[in-house]
Amino acid sequence: MKNIVFLLIGLFSISSISQSKNLNLMPWPKEITMQPGNFLINPEFTIGVNKKPSKRIEIATTKFLRRLSGRTGIFIENGFLSKSYNATNNSLNISFENIGKLEINEDESYELNIANNNITIKANTDIGVIYGLETLLQLVTNNDESYYFPNVNIKDAPRFTWRGLMIDVARHFEPVDVLKRNLDAMTSVKMNVFHWHLTDDQGFRIESKTRPKLHELGSDGLYYTQEQIKDIVQYAGDRGIRVVPEVDVPGHGTAILTAFPEIGSKDISYSIERNSGIFDPTLDPTNEKTYEILEDLFGEIAQLFPFKYFHIGGDENEGKHWDENEHIQNFMKANNLKTNHDLQTYFNIRLDKILSKHGKSVMGWEEIMTDKMPTSALIHSWRGVNEGTSGGSSLVKAAKKGHQTVLSNGYYIDLMQSVSDHYLVDPMPKSFNLTTEEKARILGGEATMWSELVTPLNIDSRIWPRTAAIAERFWSDASINDVSNMYKRLRQISFRLEELGITHIRNRDVILRNITNNQNIDALIMLTKVYEPLKIYTRNKGGTEYKTFSPFTLFADACSADASNALLFNSLVSDYISTSSNTSKKKIIDILTNWENNYKQFSQIKNNSPILKSIEPLSKNLSEISKSLISILKTETIKINDYETIKSQYLNIKKPIVDVEFASLNSLKLLIEHFSTKNKLKLDLNNPKIQH
Amino acid sequence: MKNIVFLLIGLFSISSISQSKNLNLMPWPKEITMQPGNFLINPEFTIGVNKKPSKRIEIATTKFLRRLSGRTGIFIENGFLSKSYNATNNSLNISFENIGKLEINEDESYELNIANNNITIKANTDIGVIYGLETLLQLVTNNDESYYFPNVNIKDAPRFTWRGLMIDVARHFEPVDVLKRNLDAMTSVKMNVFHWHLTDDQGFRIESKTRPKLHELGSDGLYYTQEQIKDIVQYAGDRGIRVVPEVDVPGHGTAILTAFPEIGSKDISYSIERNSGIFDPTLDPTNEKTYEILEDLFGEIAQLFPFKYFHIGGDENEGKHWDENEHIQNFMKANNLKTNHDLQTYFNIRLDKILSKHGKSVMGWEEIMTDKMPTSALIHSWRGVNEGTSGGSSLVKAAKKGHQTVLSNGYYIDLMQSVSDHYLVDPMPKSFNLTTEEKARILGGEATMWSELVTPLNIDSRIWPRTAAIAERFWSDASINDVSNMYKRLRQISFRLEELGITHIRNRDVILRNITNNQNIDALIMLTKVYEPLKIYTRNKGGTEYKTFSPFTLFADACSADASNALLFNSLVSDYISTSSNTSKKKIIDILTNWENNYKQFSQIKNNSPILKSIEPLSKNLSEISKSLISILKTETIKINDYETIKSQYLNIKKPIVDVEFASLNSLKLLIEHFSTKNKLKLDLNNPKIQH
Repeated sequence: MKNIVFLLIGLFSISSISQSKNLNLMPWPKEITMQPGNFLINPEFTIGVNKKPSKRIEIATTKFLRRLSGRTGIFIENGFLSKSYNATNNSLNISFENIGKLEINEDESYELNIANNNITIKANTDIGVIYGLETLLQLVTNNDESYYFPNVNIKDAPRFTWRGLMIDVARHFEPVDVLKRNLDAMTSVKMNVFHWHLTDDQGFRIESKTRPKLHELGSDGLYYTQEQIKDIVQYAGDRGIRVVPEVDVPGHGTAILTAFPEIGSKDISYSIERNSGIFDPTLDPTNEKTYEILEDLFGEIAQLFPFKYFHIGGDENEGKHWDENEHIQNFMKANNLKTNHDLQTYFNIRLDKILSKHGKSVMGWEEIMTDKMPTSALIHSWRGVNEGTSGGSSLVKAAKKGHQTVLSNGYYIDLMQSVSDHYLVDPMPKSFNLTTEEKARILGGEATMWSELVTPLNIDSRIWPRTAAIAERFWSDASINDVSNMYKRLRQISFRLEELGITHIRNRDVILRNITNNQNIDALIMLTKVYEPLKIYTRNKGGTEYKTFSPFTLFADACSADASNALLFNSLVSDYISTSSNTSKKKIIDILTNWENNYKQFSQIKNNSPILKSIEPLSKNLSEISKSLISILKTETIKINDYETIKSQYLNIKKPIVDVEFASLNSLKLLIEHFSTKNKLKLDLNNPKIQH
Repeated sequence: MKNIVFLLIGLFSISSISQSKNLNLMPWPKEITMQPGNFLINPEFTIGVNKKPSKRIEIATTKFLRRLSGRTGIFIENGFLSKSYNATNNSLNISFENIGKLEINEDESYELNIANNNITIKANTDIGVIYGLETLLQLVTNNDESYYFPNVNIKDAPRFTWRGLMIDVARHFEPVDVLKRNLDAMTSVKMNVFHWHLTDDQGFRIESKTRPKLHELGSDGLYYTQEQIKDIVQYAGDRGIRVVPEVDVPGHGTAILTAFPEIGSKDISYSIERNSGIFDPTLDPTNEKTYEILEDLFGEIAQLFPFKYFHIGGDENEGKHWDENEHIQNFMKANNLKTNHDLQTYFNIRLDKILSKHGKSVMGWEEIMTDKMPTSALIHSWRGVNEGTSGGSSLVKAAKKGHQTVLSNGYYIDLMQSVSDHYLVDPMPKSFNLTTEEKARILGGEATMWSELVTPLNIDSRIWPRTAAIAERFWSDASINDVSNMYKRLRQISFRLEELGITHIRNRDVILRNITNNQNIDALIMLTKVYEPLKIYTRNKGGTEYKTFSPFTLFADACSADASNALLFNSLVSDYISTSSNTSKKKIIDILTNWENNYKQFSQIKNNSPILKSIEPLSKNLSEISKSLISILKTETIKINDYETIKSQYLNIKKPIVDVEFASLNSLKLLIEHFSTKNKLKLDLNNPKIQH
């Protein structure tokens, strides 16, 4: 009898594991145990809490009910948390102990249990409760009869305490509602730090009451009032999110110097920068007025942000204007400051003292980490490689020197790389034998949304869904790294972000309707599924093609990383080449047929405009090479007479047009090479001459 | 020679008129003269102004440049207004005299001239300039070589000074960004009054510093801070829009009484209302504390709104609690107040005095117009008919009594009626022989967006595009009333609203993706083009089916008035029945074939959920009757054996399901009747028995 029980338990846990794989949870929880049965969602659904709820719990439970009702169409009769506390007969019973503090290493764990027609969420803090509710919403499932939660027990806690998203609002201003919806999205994937890059050469975005010239002259009127800042910080805190303000100094200072040229390192007139890149305007660290202004400003800002850390930027200061300034050179000699790094450290230490007075700790980009910089500074690692260089990255150096540190290298989502590139970057280096103490200094990571090419229209599609996978990297165990499983879950998580107002899906069609002047956009939609925006700084060569006021309503803005149809095609080609599967071949031909037909459909768009004409080659090139490839696949041979054609078609589609690139280029190459090899001919696609 | 010139002028002006009809302007301008040639839009486009620009002009010109660039993809090199004033060599030269005042009857006229590669906008006020810029943006055209403005001279001015949109933020709260994008849209169609319905039974949405319990207890945390109100008022004013706050008293007062039950007319406990309708809670006009609280509150609010008018609601007070309250009854006797109307007038006059102290004039719904009410009160006409009753409407009465007045009857956009119903309602009554003075008291009208069934997700599709046609009624000459021409222009105007962030188009698919759990939504999109939400209070019978927290993510929320495919079908059927045109017949069959095929497509959606199953009959019913009708049309006969079938199919599709109705029902009836008449048989579609 005992044996049978064990056998049953064994069987059940196998089936439990395989069942849990069907769940679209992200980030993946620490421990998950499936249990037989479901919890049916019905109009009588109620939520109770063990004691007087915090504001966080009130907001989270109300929003939970709206989302559950909105998603399922169920008219839930109670729109709010039950008024009586500590009852256990609600559908969902929440218990928590403390109000979570917005500090690092706060307890964010929770346990979610669904069994016997009862749901419980238990957590030490109300922040844990929020995360339990988010997990529960990710569990909503349906068959054709009902909506339900599968019975499950989840014990969950984060791997890293710092799970951040930086948004640059200087290069392009992002209104309050853009930030709020992204804060909601962050919470939905359990991110907890919003790093607000508030100033740069292109704009100073904070209302300053002590030095109003800063926002009056440095922002084109696009700044946050202090009331709006308080509102955002409160909104974030209500969702368990800490907010780090960044005032980037002494470089990236053009907007500040537009307001106060007298603290610049060169006696020139400054005006708000409209291009992208690294610019020379730099604050003068030898001028006492610099500190007077920053002391006033930092004092105001410190009051607005309860979180301990204050980001002073500090990156990419090339010190050209310092080198050219005799007074600064004399100051350096007089103070035994040998290099510009020493001078910047002198500057940083003075800022550190100002911030200390307000109870703040300095955080800065890795350039601030010099020998004399106090180890109380939090180092933000963004350059170089994470692994494998002799000395290790700045992250490793920082941890070894005694700094707390956060990783952004590998999470630059503005570069429009594939989510898989980011997903496998782990903040914890494997090959440096760090001590436990050193490891503990690696707090986590931050995805960075630099906004040179980003406006309220397209920003969400640059942040999401890729940041959800990065969030999983910060939260979940290092062993959760199956890329194809991540893609599968990400599709559902991405779609669900629409519920929070994220516009990454809906705004694609807005852009395409504009391009076609409101004609049929189906042909263009298909093209967005195979073309991706140019990556890694190639879209805005030299930083001058696009100015801050250039149009970001172009075809490239409708496209995003991980073009879905191209991804599918790539996996089919990879499969076909390794297995010669006929099923894959058939599917490849289906896709190619669809691509071939695109040009016919494209040509039917009635309003032929200059912008549409500029896109036309994308469709034509795709159609032509698809036609050739269909014939090659069907005959499994490349005719010698067709070589020149296919090669020129390949070279055509390889060439970036309207700032996008074809996302299945390598698969086309593999297919062509596959059949040329099969025919024992060598086809060099990059060489205009055929060799055979 | 003279004759030839006249002939040429004659020919040109005919061609000019017909050309101007191709323009998609809305509201249609007062005078428009086409001129030969075009102004090509190129990257060197610049804007200059005759003197130091107002903030309004700075904002409007910057936004103009972004929209022009965003729409065309042209990289305009100057992102801002030229810094040097009074140059005339810019592409667009603006001249204005005064900063427009946010009062009634302010000059809003402008002249726009495009000729000889030069554009000028001349206006007395900067508000006129804004409107000139909006007209110019509506003129952007393209061929396949370039984007251009057609040469034209436009002299324009409004017919009515009050062109309003009311948004009810009490039944459902609408965040700041929802209001801002709608203010932008209002300006784009030259509307100039935003009436902000801030309080009602379901919520009190203003932060009160003198009586904070009002927003703390009356809003579920969903209210505007005073800073946000100032921001909205400023934002509106920068766009030439006046803002009227409404605090609805003494009825519609549940939220107020939730905070201050002691000023209610009945000694009961009050709590925020969750249903829709007319409720009994009413402020006690005999209690001095009522006036103390309102005096504090009105004083705060008056400071926030610079416009002269303050809306005190006053509607739908049935006085039930007054009748039941002995103290109130005694007060009425003691003060010789014979009716509840008299008592409400006593109340209103006291409020009028409070508001006078703050320089405000009372505005109220028509119920406030009693014999004793001072004629300084502006009467908001909302009930009854505009024409034809013996005494005329409240609008006529008000004008005759000496009140200024504004019309909303006929512009209730929440009722989800066709735009054509609203478009032909004219604020100026034709049949009452009003004097010039009386006519001058009719200031204009207001579209009213009551929000019982409206959330941030669907509100834009309830306001737009229909409000654009209402805006034309308020701005343009009464003779501009060609419905089919309006529909043609509205299609383009509607699409262009996307540029301002209006979500009426994009959010349809968001709702449908949720319903299908992210499957292919094509079949559902087609259904939204033939089904419309139930009209005129039938969707929310008794006001209790939908509570404020019910889901508004349903299929009905993806549908809107004027279902496009149904409109097309209706016009084809109408044409076919009157002309027997074979072309129309063919097109009708094409549409029916599309409808017939819908069910096949619908059935392929993979995720079959309860919500999807509830929608299925819409597709099935449509498919079945379409199949029958195709056969009838092809054979031009109804077989007697098919009568029962077609009749039951008709009755099926006639029945509202999931809160939508089929928008071509009458056309189906006409077709069926047409062929039954042709066959000399009488088919009573509403009678289950066939007569023949």
